[in-house]
Amino acid sequence: MNPLESEEFRRQGHMVIDFIADYYNNIESYPVLSRVEPGYLRKRLPKSAPKIPEPIETILKDVNDHIIPGLTHWQSPTHFALFPSSASTAGFLGETLAAGLNVVGLNWVSSPAATELETIVMDWLGEMLKLPNSFLFSGTGGGVLMGTTCEAVICTLVAARDRKLNEIGRENIGKLVVYGSDQTHSAFQKASRIVGIHPENCRIIETSKKTLLSMSSEILKKKIVADVEAGLVPLFVCATVGTTATTAVDPLGPISDVAKAHDMWVHVDAAYAGSACICPEFRHFIDGVERVNSFSFNAHKWFFTTLDCCCLWVKDPIALTKSLSTSPEFLKNKATESKLVVDYKDWQITLSRRFRSLKLWLVLRSYGVERLQGFLRSHVKMAKQFEALLGTDDRFEVVVKRNFSLVCFRISPLAISKFKIIITTTTTTTAKNDVVFGDEYGVINGNVNLREACINDVNKELLESINGSGRVYMSHCMVGDVYALRFAVGSTLTEESHIVRAWKVVKQHADAILANYI
Amino acid sequence: MNPLESEEFRRQGHMVIDFIADYYNNIESYPVLSRVEPGYLRKRLPKSAPKIPEPIETILKDVNDHIIPGLTHWQSPTHFALFPSSASTAGFLGETLAAGLNVVGLNWVSSPAATELETIVMDWLGEMLKLPNSFLFSGTGGGVLMGTTCEAVICTLVAARDRKLNEIGRENIGKLVVYGSDQTHSAFQKASRIVGIHPENCRIIETSKKTLLSMSSEILKKKIVADVEAGLVPLFVCATVGTTATTAVDPLGPISDVAKAHDMWVHVDAAYAGSACICPEFRHFIDGVERVNSFSFNAHKWFFTTLDCCCLWVKDPIALTKSLSTSPEFLKNKATESKLVVDYKDWQITLSRRFRSLKLWLVLRSYGVERLQGFLRSHVKMAKQFEALLGTDDRFEVVVKRNFSLVCFRISPLAISKFKIIITTTTTTTAKNDVVFGDEYGVINGNVNLREACINDVNKELLESINGSGRVYMSHCMVGDVYALRFAVGSTLTEESHIVRAWKVVKQHADAILANYI
Repeated sequence: MNPLESEEFRRQGHMVIDFIADYYNNIESYPVLSRVEPGYLRKRLPKSAPKIPEPIETILKDVNDHIIPGLTHWQSPTHFALFPSSASTAGFLGETLAAGLNVVGLNWVSSPAATELETIVMDWLGEMLKLPNSFLFSGTGGGVLMGTTCEAVICTLVAARDRKLNEIGRENIGKLVVYGSDQTHSAFQKASRIVGIHPENCRIIETSKKTLLSMSSEILKKKIVADVEAGLVPLFVCATVGTTATTAVDPLGPISDVAKAHDMWVHVDAAYAGSACICPEFRHFIDGVERVNSFSFNAHKWFFTTLDCCCLWVKDPIALTKSLSTSPEFLKNKATESKLVVDYKDWQITLSRRFRSLKLWLVLRSYGVERLQGFLRSHVKMAKQFEALLGTDDRFEVVVKRNFSLVCFRISPLAISKFKIIITTTTTTTAKNDVVFGDEYGVINGNVNLREACINDVNKELLESINGSGRVYMSHCMVGDVYALRFAVGSTLTEESHIVRAWKVVKQHADAILANYI
Repeated sequence: MNPLESEEFRRQGHMVIDFIADYYNNIESYPVLSRVEPGYLRKRLPKSAPKIPEPIETILKDVNDHIIPGLTHWQSPTHFALFPSSASTAGFLGETLAAGLNVVGLNWVSSPAATELETIVMDWLGEMLKLPNSFLFSGTGGGVLMGTTCEAVICTLVAARDRKLNEIGRENIGKLVVYGSDQTHSAFQKASRIVGIHPENCRIIETSKKTLLSMSSEILKKKIVADVEAGLVPLFVCATVGTTATTAVDPLGPISDVAKAHDMWVHVDAAYAGSACICPEFRHFIDGVERVNSFSFNAHKWFFTTLDCCCLWVKDPIALTKSLSTSPEFLKNKATESKLVVDYKDWQITLSRRFRSLKLWLVLRSYGVERLQGFLRSHVKMAKQFEALLGTDDRFEVVVKRNFSLVCFRISPLAISKFKIIITTTTTTTAKNDVVFGDEYGVINGNVNLREACINDVNKELLESINGSGRVYMSHCMVGDVYALRFAVGSTLTEESHIVRAWKVVKQHADAILANYI
């Protein structure tokens, strides 16, 4: 039988839809964080690929028996770790349609609908975000869908790099300097490394809790001036709206002013928080975006669009295509020659591309602007609800001001009066690695940070205990020297009852742990 | 209603499965190459995203009415252009499952099954290709799934670059030289540009039809020696098994010998032809692979796995991870610290990754090794069938030896006795741009290439005429100065009857065109 025979496709397709629908029905019965041990799957699967076909029924049984237990359930309503990866039926259907049609986007002619829908949807979404016309196709810019922010940063960095090197000469690549803060996503440093920026020329602006972990344009300016004085060439600033650790927001306007004075490229990474900016009450977080060069957010994070889907807008598409275009003989065609079309291969790293705009189009149409705003607001409301619950219990504190749907919290130092001490020397009454609880900190040595370290340890213990329960999954961040638990609302299935449940889990595990420390 | 409500998910999911199954039922009724004009879709869709939700029924109707006409139907059984993008029910189901589970692969802990299944499947597939143990996890290497070859080349280039710069100093980035042939995919030059190789340091080894467009290790050696003498540093060779234009094969062994003498990295791009090497009779094309550093092929091209899915194996994963690893606080976890696990984020460009191994696993299991070999052989057989049909008609010639399932052919110069002459000067009897057919070539000027150019023009006219029919879709390549039509078999639905139909279309359009030229 042909592997694309349509009636067998239909039969198996329906089975898989039912499998996934059932998975969503049962999702709350799984531990959110997988409990498997490294190497579990190799023990369960054959050493080699089968010689002869196996039926879909057997395969789906194996997915159920061997794959599901090894999943960390990102779609669980009690997945509060990292950032959400918010799925939706519409996003799923768009991805499914794209996989079913399985056209290859290379250039316009390779499937005109794929390119044209992308330009339309990027304009729709840009308009929802109130991006200026200079970022839209209907204006003088344009948008493109990539896999992830990492790719968006690489492409804009390469465009900026080549523009600058064309001015100052290729041989000066070692002089280029890029700037981010200590809160900027690690993808920025990685992208800089990939495109050949000297690792020593990646400047990290220190932030502080006092200024809400936001990048200071004053410090940025000082660093830039110092670099210029040292004979280096400032190239690129990556500003963040909604940092990975705490959702801090860098001030786009002031940063752009500083950067523009040195003819630098400013990119805004709004991977998680960008979506919220379709709500008027959050739009102010991207004020100043009219002055930057490029802006990206991940629709696969908090915008109900299946992984992966990073939306990037640029003011100057020609800067991108100058660096990234190729014109191999086998792709030459009249549409490209007419210059009436967009060839997205010249806007991105890869040549082949999936029909990504389909899922974004389905999400926008299936839910509409108002309901999408409603979903996002409900998540923020639930984060506030969790914050309010924390406020009812003196043992907890919010570590940093909440901007969107992430709450960073910890057991307060006030709730801890004893400290765990790991014995490091054997005496008549203690063995090495024994654990005792002491009334005072600093008994082992005079390190003044010991108290803070002990508090951090208690909070680490809390997080491990909570995640070990399988009932919820949270993650952590460091706010300066303070270890905090991250509670990120945004899973599509999350409802207020899940917030209440999560709070109960937090309290219950804190009760058990704190018994040792009071 | 929650956008992931499971019964609505089920209802809409079934509708989309039926939509796609019906699409496959009707696929032969569409013109293979889309006939829309640039800008067609913007005229048909609203200017802005809808404020309120629209039902799936309306959206699917729009997909049918507005998207389908703008598709170039890569899954059509008469799509013979470029390279195949061979879908299958199993590949589709794997992609669908991955989209449904929608877990985010970052590191092992973010979904252990996603990482572990990938390591297992890459070993299965490596074994099928008879890659040496030095490329497998069960040996000393390992494999990873990326989106496309472009990414595989960037990652291996960055690994090679950083290894070399660690030896010779970062400041010498401008001295690094990379090598490919004039048949190497344009992705190689683009990747080199992205990672900061000086554009002047990308050497192109010229090939010739005499040596079947294969890269000469002798010429490579000469170029390398000349570069070393000029004080430059040879870094990387990209060898190709199955080039994009004609599926030429570079000799891996001799190239590696030359490269190893200069401590260079050799990558093998077997994007299209790699899959064929699971058949013993084709395996010899990658002889010598045991001496290279990395090897990649695209399972989404000719291996029944939905776009996108590039399989990359490396001998030295540490070279990759040294360049590409990041360790942000928010991802720190015990499994990573134990060093017992693979964290694929450190093997690739992006941080987030989809559960790509699922579709490859489903393809391998649903069809099994023997049937997969059978599918590939049937495509090669059909290519031979087309070649045989060409052989029955003196007016056609095969332009370059066929290696796999691609036939490069043209209308033979022997079939053309008149030449199209475009009048360039106005006389009493002719106006500018008039077209006449003359008995002799070279009447306009003394250019000796004119005859070849005329023959090329006839073949261009044939290709446009064929593709304009909508019944089949082929593409073209240049073999030296010769314009050839490319007939690539590999669409999953293609059967022998489609080859016969394609041949009839070719003959019919050649008849009409050649009437002017004889």
